[in-house]
Amino acid sequence: MRGNVGHTASLFKDEPLALDSGAILSPVTVAYETYGTLNKACNNAVLICHALTGDQYAASKHPITGKPGWWERLVGPGKLIDTAKYFVICSNVLGSCLGTTGPWEVNPKSNEPWGLDFPVITIRDMVRVQAALMDNLGIEKLFMVIGGSMGGMQVLEWIATYPERLVSAVALATAARHTAQNIAFHEVGRQAVMADPNWQAGAYYGKQQKPDKGLAVARMTAHVTYLSEDALTEKFGRNLQARDAVSFGFDADFQIESYLRHQGSAFVDRFDANSYLYITRAMDYLDIAGRHEGRLADAFKDAANVRCCVISFSSDWLYPTTENKAIAHAMNAAGVRVSFAEINSPHGHDAFLLEEPEMDAMISGFMGAAAAAEGLEP
Amino acid sequence: MRGNVGHTASLFKDEPLALDSGAILSPVTVAYETYGTLNKACNNAVLICHALTGDQYAASKHPITGKPGWWERLVGPGKLIDTAKYFVICSNVLGSCLGTTGPWEVNPKSNEPWGLDFPVITIRDMVRVQAALMDNLGIEKLFMVIGGSMGGMQVLEWIATYPERLVSAVALATAARHTAQNIAFHEVGRQAVMADPNWQAGAYYGKQQKPDKGLAVARMTAHVTYLSEDALTEKFGRNLQARDAVSFGFDADFQIESYLRHQGSAFVDRFDANSYLYITRAMDYLDIAGRHEGRLADAFKDAANVRCCVISFSSDWLYPTTENKAIAHAMNAAGVRVSFAEINSPHGHDAFLLEEPEMDAMISGFMGAAAAAEGLEP
Repeated sequence: MRGNVGHTASLFKDEPLALDSGAILSPVTVAYETYGTLNKACNNAVLICHALTGDQYAASKHPITGKPGWWERLVGPGKLIDTAKYFVICSNVLGSCLGTTGPWEVNPKSNEPWGLDFPVITIRDMVRVQAALMDNLGIEKLFMVIGGSMGGMQVLEWIATYPERLVSAVALATAARHTAQNIAFHEVGRQAVMADPNWQAGAYYGKQQKPDKGLAVARMTAHVTYLSEDALTEKFGRNLQARDAVSFGFDADFQIESYLRHQGSAFVDRFDANSYLYITRAMDYLDIAGRHEGRLADAFKDAANVRCCVISFSSDWLYPTTENKAIAHAMNAAGVRVSFAEINSPHGHDAFLLEEPEMDAMISGFMGAAAAAEGLEP
Repeated sequence: MRGNVGHTASLFKDEPLALDSGAILSPVTVAYETYGTLNKACNNAVLICHALTGDQYAASKHPITGKPGWWERLVGPGKLIDTAKYFVICSNVLGSCLGTTGPWEVNPKSNEPWGLDFPVITIRDMVRVQAALMDNLGIEKLFMVIGGSMGGMQVLEWIATYPERLVSAVALATAARHTAQNIAFHEVGRQAVMADPNWQAGAYYGKQQKPDKGLAVARMTAHVTYLSEDALTEKFGRNLQARDAVSFGFDADFQIESYLRHQGSAFVDRFDANSYLYITRAMDYLDIAGRHEGRLADAFKDAANVRCCVISFSSDWLYPTTENKAIAHAMNAAGVRVSFAEINSPHGHDAFLLEEPEMDAMISGFMGAAAAAEGLEP
């Protein structure tokens, strides 16, 4: 599964990473991709944070699937995030399975894969690793940190934890906490993985079978939450899959069934089940206001100099506009300069990954203003 | 699992039941409960149709769980559906597992449990069996047929198929078709069951293991769709389960997790996994307008004399108001006298099972008017 990792950095070798759980990790390997060139002033770096099942291949071919980068629409020479102008970094998050330290990597103490001995991590832990990677790359301050969904959660933790290291920040389709419904859908997915006897309490590495069936069910469940009801109706409706009439059986009669089965089976080829458990857990644990007695604004109190942009999508029911607006309100209350917009889109949560001209226009305008203020060439 | 079935009838002994699939079934056993007494005029019968995982124990103790009937709030002497006045029947649907013929009953041809040899059924097939039960009980015309969710789907099929046998009909929180999103959630549940190696392609009867884990995951997924996000937030929020801080592990840290796990494990004690597959399939196949080239009104064209009532709940995102309103519009277009209301409720889809005074008032008024028109004592 490891594929062709472009770059890796070994961090926290001398001083271990202190996790929110109290556990420590040392060393931490980070796999990352870069696009473009860091300028002499070191002020043109853009960090892209990926979502739950995303990876560092934002604008390069995925080594396992062979598919184009997940944000190639936005990242590249002459594109919205212009790699002729910006030095773009995208790193695989802590706990994931594309080269960064996570449950399927080898625990140096036992020389066996970590499995469930890997410590439970948080979104803030992921961000700590990214900050160390920036140190490693000689980047003191990022021109921008940007991400959608769990990527947006990392953006929020950057703003809360390292405000002095940011010029600007863009959070898309995200939330500052997981609601009961969010936790519920993740818990269903975790239970699906754990119900698979091939999961073997997480110790399936090197065995003949891995929990593919359970992980596929988890992915299918999550995938339904990524699309709006309207999008599903428009895309699939009750259309039948390669047949004229229902089969009166349990085959994938409907296109939506065939689509979901494909989503499930394709996912298990590129993702590790334990990583799925750890990363969903990190998201469930997110509650930034919780660290400040419920006052989200307090988390952003040192970020008055960070230009922020929060974007929601009208048909996103996973992290709906209300959650995104709450973030913008808290930023406002903290005196942070924040632009907020709800983009009218039928595409549901996944809109941030899709063709959304209004989103592009908003980000473009936001970046242009930030670049001008920073004295970057337009 | 069978427990104490109150009544059973053996139907379709001479003439087999012709199913929508083209298959035939003979005989068909129906398990049912009754409350109250059929009057001499035989015009006080009320048929209650149960939901997906419901049963005939609408107002009597469940033989497995020992819990009160699922609609005891509404059904009983002096209650909304007054058993001192009405003769109330509730039968276990075809394909279920509480005594009515279904996949876990014995196939008379093989003397083995049906398993996946059981024919795939439809909501209309369930209603055909109910109509035969009414024949068996000497009830030519029902004063009312009522049900919520899949029960409401049966109500709609009664109106479409046997309008001459109905005085009135009440459909709650339902739909005349399954959307792509509805199918998607059911498909996830079915895949969870089928992914369980103990499912054994449906032939687990008499074996040591049944697919409890898969069925529990299916139930958990479905359960999330039965509650509104607001209800989940209000009931559970991010409250922790019997601990002061998160465990940094995969235990049920949050109350919502503990609640869902309980819902899953309690369900497998009272429900059969194959029945779950068959009944969810029947619901997915529902598309009443589909039988009439997309014109739902045509399905109700012979129902001008049936008094109908359709009720939706504002926070129900499984069968939202739009779907219920579409039913009422089609009835109107067909010249059917229909009352429609959206009840303002925070409880999501499950609202029809809960304390909803506005719903009660609406049904009460509707029943009173129908009873007066029918010349039943008030």
